[in-house]
Amino acid sequence: MPTQTSASTTTIVIFGATGDLTHRKLVPALYNLMRKGRLPTHINIVGYARREWSDDFFRERLLGGVKESLGDEFDAAEWEKFAPQLRYVRGDLNTREDFEGLQKALDEIEEGDANRLYYLSTAPNFYEPVAEHLTALDMFKEDEGYRRLVVEKPFGYDLGSARALNASLHHLLDEHQIYRIDHYLGKETVQNILFFRFANAIFEPIWNRNYVDSVQITVAEMVDVEHRGGYYDGAGVLRDMFQNHLMQLLSLVAMEPPASISADALRDEKVKVLTSLRSVTNNDIVVAQYDGYRETEGVAPDSQTPTYAMLKLFVDNWRWQGVPFYLRSGKALKHKVTEIVIEFGRPPHRMFKRARSKSFSPNALSICIQPDEGIHLSFETKVPDTGGDLQSANLEFHYKDSFSETAIPEAYERLLLDAMLGDASLFTRSDEIELSWSLIDSVFNHLNHAGGPEILNYPRLTWGPAEADARIAREGRSWRLGCLHVDDD
Amino acid sequence: MPTQTSASTTTIVIFGATGDLTHRKLVPALYNLMRKGRLPTHINIVGYARREWSDDFFRERLLGGVKESLGDEFDAAEWEKFAPQLRYVRGDLNTREDFEGLQKALDEIEEGDANRLYYLSTAPNFYEPVAEHLTALDMFKEDEGYRRLVVEKPFGYDLGSARALNASLHHLLDEHQIYRIDHYLGKETVQNILFFRFANAIFEPIWNRNYVDSVQITVAEMVDVEHRGGYYDGAGVLRDMFQNHLMQLLSLVAMEPPASISADALRDEKVKVLTSLRSVTNNDIVVAQYDGYRETEGVAPDSQTPTYAMLKLFVDNWRWQGVPFYLRSGKALKHKVTEIVIEFGRPPHRMFKRARSKSFSPNALSICIQPDEGIHLSFETKVPDTGGDLQSANLEFHYKDSFSETAIPEAYERLLLDAMLGDASLFTRSDEIELSWSLIDSVFNHLNHAGGPEILNYPRLTWGPAEADARIAREGRSWRLGCLHVDDD
Repeated sequence: MPTQTSASTTTIVIFGATGDLTHRKLVPALYNLMRKGRLPTHINIVGYARREWSDDFFRERLLGGVKESLGDEFDAAEWEKFAPQLRYVRGDLNTREDFEGLQKALDEIEEGDANRLYYLSTAPNFYEPVAEHLTALDMFKEDEGYRRLVVEKPFGYDLGSARALNASLHHLLDEHQIYRIDHYLGKETVQNILFFRFANAIFEPIWNRNYVDSVQITVAEMVDVEHRGGYYDGAGVLRDMFQNHLMQLLSLVAMEPPASISADALRDEKVKVLTSLRSVTNNDIVVAQYDGYRETEGVAPDSQTPTYAMLKLFVDNWRWQGVPFYLRSGKALKHKVTEIVIEFGRPPHRMFKRARSKSFSPNALSICIQPDEGIHLSFETKVPDTGGDLQSANLEFHYKDSFSETAIPEAYERLLLDAMLGDASLFTRSDEIELSWSLIDSVFNHLNHAGGPEILNYPRLTWGPAEADARIAREGRSWRLGCLHVDDD
Repeated sequence: MPTQTSASTTTIVIFGATGDLTHRKLVPALYNLMRKGRLPTHINIVGYARREWSDDFFRERLLGGVKESLGDEFDAAEWEKFAPQLRYVRGDLNTREDFEGLQKALDEIEEGDANRLYYLSTAPNFYEPVAEHLTALDMFKEDEGYRRLVVEKPFGYDLGSARALNASLHHLLDEHQIYRIDHYLGKETVQNILFFRFANAIFEPIWNRNYVDSVQITVAEMVDVEHRGGYYDGAGVLRDMFQNHLMQLLSLVAMEPPASISADALRDEKVKVLTSLRSVTNNDIVVAQYDGYRETEGVAPDSQTPTYAMLKLFVDNWRWQGVPFYLRSGKALKHKVTEIVIEFGRPPHRMFKRARSKSFSPNALSICIQPDEGIHLSFETKVPDTGGDLQSANLEFHYKDSFSETAIPEAYERLLLDAMLGDASLFTRSDEIELSWSLIDSVFNHLNHAGGPEILNYPRLTWGPAEADARIAREGRSWRLGCLHVDDD
């Protein structure tokens, strides 16, 4: 239950405010919310970090981020209205006195009752210390307004650490006060999965094992690890992408219709999907590194960290029994694309012949998450001016056609607004996180076991290791991508 | 069973060759078939009519039609190859000696065995006399090649006359030799209805009373009767459009999957739909005339002939029980469009709110027959940058995007080719014609009965009489047109 207490002033405290996220994402998002009239009238945005910055220096830096984010739409007059609400408080994340200083500063800024949103934009090892300090100073008490804690990813490193972190946080504050970020959930196209499925009557009847042959989820990046080798080598694609984004996409595609879209009704259904995941075997896993990964600065020369993974999962329930879910993600792949493909079965009876040189394609629904947001539905159609040859064509919807290009906001806008409104629908609940880590742990168990899947290699800017193609081909399928409109998948 | 005898030479005899159809449609179609290499190597195209034309004059006239039809694509060198195959034979449609002359001329032209396609492009009252002369001279005997008779519309004026005509023709030649034209069946988009339904696995499961709320078929013309008042006043929209085109579209949308697309398997299924039509009542009929119709030259000042009609039909079978099929067609309507709309039901459970000022639209599949050929599927989507407002959007397929603009041939190309190939799939069988007339007769019985539906009026360039909108509104529905992309239906 989100708390209903709400004061007239709202303060957002960003811990780790000198990091990139603050000026690249958080403050531009808040700035846009202000422009759209969605921020509370009285708002304070307080950055907290160790560096000796002044309010003015902080504002200058944020101004740079906002300008870069808005481009031509930046309006200096609007910024002048926005800037005074930005403050900077210097402090260490481990020092009680500094938190006392923060508390004092906040009390002065707020001049009375206020809601507070604490945003943990810090390294994960500071999540607990910060929460402890805030608890010790009664700064989570909701007497005068709400007190909420937004936790950035990564939330844990494995099941054990995620459980420990959940336990610590639950000891210090209530689950209803915790908002775990997975920014994928803030994306319009991800939110729309539920609307597409449940605001329309025609997809749900065929959204099951009777009509669906398989589901494919691709989250492909073209970039490599760049300068983040040190961080990345400790995480890898399974922790960086699968545990959060891919598992969320899987949950949204596979879940039963909830009775409502309230945060708990929604998350209950997502949890049911994760609970129903069948244990993976060696054969369900392909992992690989792009050529040259081990030569990256910060990466161990004998690194076993996958930059690419493919998982084959089954959801063992009434709806999905026997339908494989193929998930893949990687860096240095051929195209940047995030796409969910629902591949349907073949017609039970064939009465038309194929066009010469055209293979028959079963219907596929492509949910194009990014970059070209939309939905494509492939179908077979008669080739005009032939007696009856078939060819695939697409029914297509593009956001940019129906809505303006700028209509799709950054995920953080929605997430920050929801956190202020107390709507946790698009945040991850503790049980979701743990179930998701549980699956990733089981994959690591296979990888670390003698005789487990070996780490393969793939050339940069391809679709990953040949084995991923071969694996799915042995099951009579192939990777499909309907959003790209390029003939190279 | 189409006959399998086939000679190396093929002759097409067009009766009534001086009429518009010959130079506007038939010969351009044959010319295009020649360009595409689809005509038999040895072909003769023989025009037969009363006027004293020479071969050269006939060719000149056809050249005009071909040039107009092809525009920039016309190629004089190709025409030089094509023209020598065109001949003209003068003759009366009622005179035995003239048919003997035709026979003699054909024997000379053909120089041996030949197939013959006789094309009745005459007024309907000549169908029988021509067939009688041909029979009397053994010109339907298939000893040396096939002998087929293509019959243009209208085929009969009511059930009685259609039955009589069928009986006469069956007395003179075999059903397998008769090809009754409904040029709608030659349209790519009409043929594609079957491919869309049966070459894809995902539409058939929802193509029934469990998921379909209603079906709407609109065949709208913007033109009025123009200079054809005399002809039209004797026919009206029910005979001119419903008996043939609309009933064919209805059959294709409602039919069960055939075991094959052979002519008889296909037509058996269409006949089953027509056999299952529930008797209409007064309430199922709206008829009207556009303002000024009675002042048209050739139209009776007290004419009761409808230029607009709407029929509500039910297909009383397992699949369609209770699903209304709303058919409408008229002249002088707001837009030129032929569209089939499958309107689906609403989601069983509503969990999202509507956008302000946007009404919820159930899914609708629009099959755009003409002029902008394609398929549109409307669905509800989340409006970006809102918490959860819904708005309708379209998944769209346009022929002109997937295939070149010129890829869609004229209906007559396909129909003439099929007639030569002996494939009667896209021609109307005698029982189809009679069942279709039977329905139209029953509508006229209501119209002619005291207390039956009165003929209403409508302003030109509207969507017809207000009563048609009111009728469907009383049933909680509204007319939908998804192909037009104009907000005025």
